[in-house]
Amino acid sequence: MTGARRVLGIDPGLAATGYGVLDGNSHEARAVASGVIRTRPSTPRAERLRAILEGVQALLAEHRPDELAIEQAFVAVNVRSAFAIGEARAAAIVAAALAGVAVVEYPPATIKAAVTGNGSAPKEQVQAMVALQLGMSSLPEPLDAADALAVALTRLAEADFEARLAGQR
Amino acid sequence: MTGARRVLGIDPGLAATGYGVLDGNSHEARAVASGVIRTRPSTPRAERLRAILEGVQALLAEHRPDELAIEQAFVAVNVRSAFAIGEARAAAIVAAALAGVAVVEYPPATIKAAVTGNGSAPKEQVQAMVALQLGMSSLPEPLDAADALAVALTRLAEADFEARLAGQR
Repeated sequence: MTGARRVLGIDPGLAATGYGVLDGNSHEARAVASGVIRTRPSTPRAERLRAILEGVQALLAEHRPDELAIEQAFVAVNVRSAFAIGEARAAAIVAAALAGVAVVEYPPATIKAAVTGNGSAPKEQVQAMVALQLGMSSLPEPLDAADALAVALTRLAEADFEARLAGQR
Repeated sequence: MTGARRVLGIDPGLAATGYGVLDGNSHEARAVASGVIRTRPSTPRAERLRAILEGVQALLAEHRPDELAIEQAFVAVNVRSAFAIGEARAAAIVAAALAGVAVVEYPPATIKAAVTGNGSAPKEQVQAMVALQLGMSSLPEPLDAADALAVALTRLAEADFEARLAGQR
């Protein structure tokens, strides 16, 4: 498969961090694993962040991706929510940095556009297009896992684009 | 010295994370070290977070504090700023969690009240009271370092309070 790579996509959240591992390129991609790292609100914040860090470290060790792809965070319901998302994001990013795995980041609109062709697509449409592109027989659940697969797909699409550009030089 | 402990205070920020190491109790405390971990805006976000994590890890290794004290983040100028603070906070918290060092968190108003007696004191007053309580001949600079010493002082004050409560049982 041309330009095949393995990407770990992460949709960060303090209570639920979605993940999805993809192999392939944007024309032919396969979901190796997907799911959610959950933490309990009753657990101290430091322990929740440690659980996210260690969860991502375990995924990196098991799946040995070439890259970690993660959504850039610009929008949140409120400042409190932004702090929580930022902290979960950092735990995942730091896990990759410690493992020497490159981190690529995409704005939400870029991910939606890459997966659905529409930068303001609703989450359910992203979920349906992820299932279609990965040839899944059912929708990826929960939405956090679907979002993580979407950001990994975005990385595969960008890598193909970069390869085409390089080929034209 | 009764109830003496060593506390690493952290004032998290993506561009500048203040730190301050205190030894002692709330009646007699000594600043062992203080300063700032800086990162450049031109550096990729993942590398900046890794620099904060590794900077805090180096402080933990050098000073071997009993606890890391850090400000809780509730207020930010905007959501973008909240994400950045949250990410820097997480990098520091994760460093402590990885080292097995307990993390204690205080709301900004608690820190201001503990240090100045006024929960809405301006930063300059916090800085002056930190210098006074630590017997420093000059103001701790920059403000990020003063804020880090303030959160460490708050931990010492709380520890004394806890010890008094325990003594009354």
